[in-house]
Amino acid sequence: MLKVGILGITGYAGYELIQILLKHPCIQIAEMAGRLEKPTPISSIFGQFKKRFDMECQVFEGASSFGRSCDLIFLALPHKVSMAMVPEFLKAGKRVIDLSADFRLKNAASYAEWYHEEHTSASLLPEAVYGLPELYQDRIKNARLIANPGCYPTTVILGCAPLIKHGLVKHEIIVDSKSGISGAGATPSAVTHFVNRYENFTAYNIGVHRHIPEMEQELSLLAGSAITVIFSPHLLPINRGMLSTMYLSLKSAKTQDELSAIYQEFYQDKPFVRLLDKIPQTADVRETNYCDIWVNLDKRTNKVIVVSAIDNLTKGASGQAVQNMNIMYGWDETLGF
Amino acid sequence: MLKVGILGITGYAGYELIQILLKHPCIQIAEMAGRLEKPTPISSIFGQFKKRFDMECQVFEGASSFGRSCDLIFLALPHKVSMAMVPEFLKAGKRVIDLSADFRLKNAASYAEWYHEEHTSASLLPEAVYGLPELYQDRIKNARLIANPGCYPTTVILGCAPLIKHGLVKHEIIVDSKSGISGAGATPSAVTHFVNRYENFTAYNIGVHRHIPEMEQELSLLAGSAITVIFSPHLLPINRGMLSTMYLSLKSAKTQDELSAIYQEFYQDKPFVRLLDKIPQTADVRETNYCDIWVNLDKRTNKVIVVSAIDNLTKGASGQAVQNMNIMYGWDETLGF
Amino acid sequence: MLKVGILGITGYAGYELIQILLKHPCIQIAEMAGRLEKPTPISSIFGQFKKRFDMECQVFEGASSFGRSCDLIFLALPHKVSMAMVPEFLKAGKRVIDLSADFRLKNAASYAEWYHEEHTSASLLPEAVYGLPELYQDRIKNARLIANPGCYPTTVILGCAPLIKHGLVKHEIIVDSKSGISGAGATPSAVTHFVNRYENFTAYNIGVHRHIPEMEQELSLLAGSAITVIFSPHLLPINRGMLSTMYLSLKSAKTQDELSAIYQEFYQDKPFVRLLDKIPQTADVRETNYCDIWVNLDKRTNKVIVVSAIDNLTKGASGQAVQNMNIMYGWDETLGF
Amino acid sequence: MLKVGILGITGYAGYELIQILLKHPCIQIAEMAGRLEKPTPISSIFGQFKKRFDMECQVFEGASSFGRSCDLIFLALPHKVSMAMVPEFLKAGKRVIDLSADFRLKNAASYAEWYHEEHTSASLLPEAVYGLPELYQDRIKNARLIANPGCYPTTVILGCAPLIKHGLVKHEIIVDSKSGISGAGATPSAVTHFVNRYENFTAYNIGVHRHIPEMEQELSLLAGSAITVIFSPHLLPINRGMLSTMYLSLKSAKTQDELSAIYQEFYQDKPFVRLLDKIPQTADVRETNYCDIWVNLDKRTNKVIVVSAIDNLTKGASGQAVQNMNIMYGWDETLGF
Repeated sequence: MLKVGILGITGYAGYELIQILLKHPCIQIAEMAGRLEKPTPISSIFGQFKKRFDMECQVFEGASSFGRSCDLIFLALPHKVSMAMVPEFLKAGKRVIDLSADFRLKNAASYAEWYHEEHTSASLLPEAVYGLPELYQDRIKNARLIANPGCYPTTVILGCAPLIKHGLVKHEIIVDSKSGISGAGATPSAVTHFVNRYENFTAYNIGVHRHIPEMEQELSLLAGSAITVIFSPHLLPINRGMLSTMYLSLKSAKTQDELSAIYQEFYQDKPFVRLLDKIPQTADVRETNYCDIWVNLDKRTNKVIVVSAIDNLTKGASGQAVQNMNIMYGWDETLGF
Repeated sequence: MLKVGILGITGYAGYELIQILLKHPCIQIAEMAGRLEKPTPISSIFGQFKKRFDMECQVFEGASSFGRSCDLIFLALPHKVSMAMVPEFLKAGKRVIDLSADFRLKNAASYAEWYHEEHTSASLLPEAVYGLPELYQDRIKNARLIANPGCYPTTVILGCAPLIKHGLVKHEIIVDSKSGISGAGATPSAVTHFVNRYENFTAYNIGVHRHIPEMEQELSLLAGSAITVIFSPHLLPINRGMLSTMYLSLKSAKTQDELSAIYQEFYQDKPFVRLLDKIPQTADVRETNYCDIWVNLDKRTNKVIVVSAIDNLTKGASGQAVQNMNIMYGWDETLGF
Repeated sequence: MLKVGILGITGYAGYELIQILLKHPCIQIAEMAGRLEKPTPISSIFGQFKKRFDMECQVFEGASSFGRSCDLIFLALPHKVSMAMVPEFLKAGKRVIDLSADFRLKNAASYAEWYHEEHTSASLLPEAVYGLPELYQDRIKNARLIANPGCYPTTVILGCAPLIKHGLVKHEIIVDSKSGISGAGATPSAVTHFVNRYENFTAYNIGVHRHIPEMEQELSLLAGSAITVIFSPHLLPINRGMLSTMYLSLKSAKTQDELSAIYQEFYQDKPFVRLLDKIPQTADVRETNYCDIWVNLDKRTNKVIVVSAIDNLTKGASGQAVQNMNIMYGWDETLGF
Repeated sequence: MLKVGILGITGYAGYELIQILLKHPCIQIAEMAGRLEKPTPISSIFGQFKKRFDMECQVFEGASSFGRSCDLIFLALPHKVSMAMVPEFLKAGKRVIDLSADFRLKNAASYAEWYHEEHTSASLLPEAVYGLPELYQDRIKNARLIANPGCYPTTVILGCAPLIKHGLVKHEIIVDSKSGISGAGATPSAVTHFVNRYENFTAYNIGVHRHIPEMEQELSLLAGSAITVIFSPHLLPINRGMLSTMYLSLKSAKTQDELSAIYQEFYQDKPFVRLLDKIPQTADVRETNYCDIWVNLDKRTNKVIVVSAIDNLTKGASGQAVQNMNIMYGWDETLGF
């Protein structure tokens, strides 16, 4: 049994990690810690776990006192907190899957620009592997440090990768994304207040969301040249679910059949990508690790419109982290799901 | 034009007061204040008012500096804050409609027991009029100080009053109430966090809710003897709306027709009570000042089951306050609605 | 591997049965059928199953042509349809778990009274076992025909059983229940129309709901004397979840500790009952087979108030059916969950 | 008092028309009719109206027997039904505001292409005035027949008009729109079933929605050259509200200040357009006739991103119809709101 530790247990990513790991046949949750006032059974924090998993969460008191019994550490911490801890865990011989954004951007300057803080572990950036299994399975296998992708980038990169990789589309991509409110975190605020969100819909951070450099980095790597993403995230009045609608311009004419074939070929052996012949809906991926994708040629305007849907807490966070773990330890990618 | 002031502008009661008063032909909102960092246009606090009502809210700095230009003050303040201010406003010759609980209980000892604080203006309790217009229209007319009823008590007292007044039912009433989340206030908390409420339902404060003594006081007054209320409030995952289901035991047999006739007679000239021949639903009273009531004889068990529905922000708070104002100034009760 | 058949695949009970059975290590779904125009992959009916379970559902053409390869048949059919088919399946040597109400009432006259139709298989009523495992585990073990309980009765019987069994409460129980809208079925109607339910709340079938005789039958059996249930079901604007608030009168004084101890003892070895020291919420049982129960002495009024919560599709329907199957075949009760 | 008739009373547009008209000081609802089995009080169809407006709706039996007492007819009928009736009403000397799509497209061939039916009153198309008051106030004034705009086109045309009119942007506009479910109508279906929409989000009719030719017609008229709209509508799990996010490419560089100034100037005397300096949200326009607009220069990508929000039943349908009526009869545009 692989012994895993989870750091940052009070948020939704921590919750969802436990939900998935409890079904996994090859691992044992050996340690959990978070910002707590005193050691607390996880079932007191999340009532769902009562009678299923009553293990106690520890008060987190620093990287040096956490995870000694663990082979693998999941970091479900806020951005900027993770980067301070990763070096210590690596030095102690642990493998790390970091669900924060801290090791996603290859470029420390870009991190400083978008996150308004200097990267304090920049020397680890070259080693960190961007944990999108559909693109980087081989590198994930041997990684010590996984930068688990953002939720929006997961929908967008998976949605566009086949077109980008084959050089079929122009360099500018318009992305209109919608996320459930669990994406805004578990901390109460005016934004997450029920009355402010129910029977309401809005957008936020248009053009300035921090997932933009992550998308552009990965799509540009795929393209071999710079890709620009115009990105508008919206806040859906639902708990879980994310859907992105992407608008791409073909360089030269293609038929719907050609596009479909390209996607089929690109994702033929990827267990968590489902290519649909109708528009995806978030309910169909709820609490699953699937990314549902629909690619559509709008003949009238010669645009390609792609719609992709995930559960932002599963394929958009904790499910993808477990998928990465499965690959790191040579297990079937779908184990535990 | 009557000049009114609203104190406590950042909560839902304040918001709803403005919504109603803007349609009222005989009043002018002369002053507004709340806990703000600096003077702020109301349309910056609530986007709904942009271009309709851009008046500035003042920073509240004490009762002595507020409301000088006003004839009537609406207090939309938390419990315990109101009672400190009311004497000063009355002394300055203002009439006051207090939306908090501070002047609802006639008995200062009961207030201390349920609100865990001594009443600091107990000498005003005899004068304060419980502002339920369907029962106390005459006293409201000449009142200086109105204690605007709680939302739950409004549904329960209106729902049971005809049976209680006619002495038809036993002294024990079971009340199972459900409230939309605006009832929990505008302050962000774990309770009001969207993800915690959406696709969820629960009860709270069963048997210990502070509206219990208010219901028992008013129903006992109506009965002329002590009435006991067993009360369970629940939290509905909707914004606005409140529905109470009440279970009463008949002292002696009655027919459905007799019950219906008693309600018809009791509420015959009450413009905001609607007696239905089907079960009410909250959507039908949304953003209205109506209380919809259905009285039903369960012949099989000889119980009377009453269902009443209101909008907790309108008839359950601000609408009722405006209805009281209309009566105080001799206007048609329905003016502004 | 046990071969099971599912009849009635297009409703939510059928959907949920598949969700649970796909995780079950000892069974194989051998046949599925429903009211379809032509054989249809289940993943075309419910997109969730795509790539996980693409088996074809057959067009149902009568009991004689269905389930020949199966050991056990789940009937997820409407009331009144089931009773016509059960005899044929039993004659063919199948065991049957019927999710409809057709075999729940022991008394054919009572069935006729509440369901407005003569029971056409009344001779099987004595043999049918009421499939509430917490009460009838031994009889379930050897049953040929299980009458899977209704969702409301599951919450009410489990919530009251310890008090009733010990003869602690009076014969009249008031039950105020709230159900998610999946309980109203998958057929579009004005009742299930989104706009009619969202931001809305109401009650229905107060005093006349068909689950009343089922509750009274089982509680009276437990009590050894007639129990009367006053029952008000409400329609919650959520998908899944059911919560019942029950009001009982103690025959003689008890302490909270005594009540808690009675519940602890009654449910000590029941894996799917969780006794809470706080009020349950439906989110904590969502997509689980748990029934969360809180028992509370209201000292002020000498009432016992019990709140119980389940997922109406899991413990309230398909989960309970699988729990029954586990017992019938000698497996651990929790297998597949 | 102007006497108005409403034809098609059972849908949401009819409902909302009544809600607004009941507040209007200069009109009287003289006749109402719809597809009913027998004459029915409107308060039996929509419980909201009980005690406020108990007028009876007639069974519709043909244009010749409806509206004789009326000056103005609102047609809240399905597409294709309206066009058969309009000629008769005009011949009888009535003015008509048609809320369907039948008279919005100037080109009968385009109607046939997108609505799959020949236009049977094509001779009236030249006379019909597209009832978007912010563009066509003068023509509306004297119109006999108003084609009330679609909800999506209202958000898109108002959102883009200043940029298009000034020739600042390229001919291709990407529009990503989201609509509340009341937009799907009052008829129950799988699409509008609560369980299928709650905690779910999806798109529909991408690239083929019938509002596309309407948007292109109006934007092209404004531009003086052909504009192409790439359009993706989505289905929001809320009752009322519509938000469109529009992506436009500048022909030459502009500053944010220049863009803001252009919008300020364009809409300076339009009472129902509110230009915001933050992203609109649907809650702020709920049950109002406002269109909230935010125009934003994304400097990084040189795109203009516009977000506009309306209530799809008010400014997107019935509110706009009443605004048109106000203009037709020389009243203040905002009367009744």
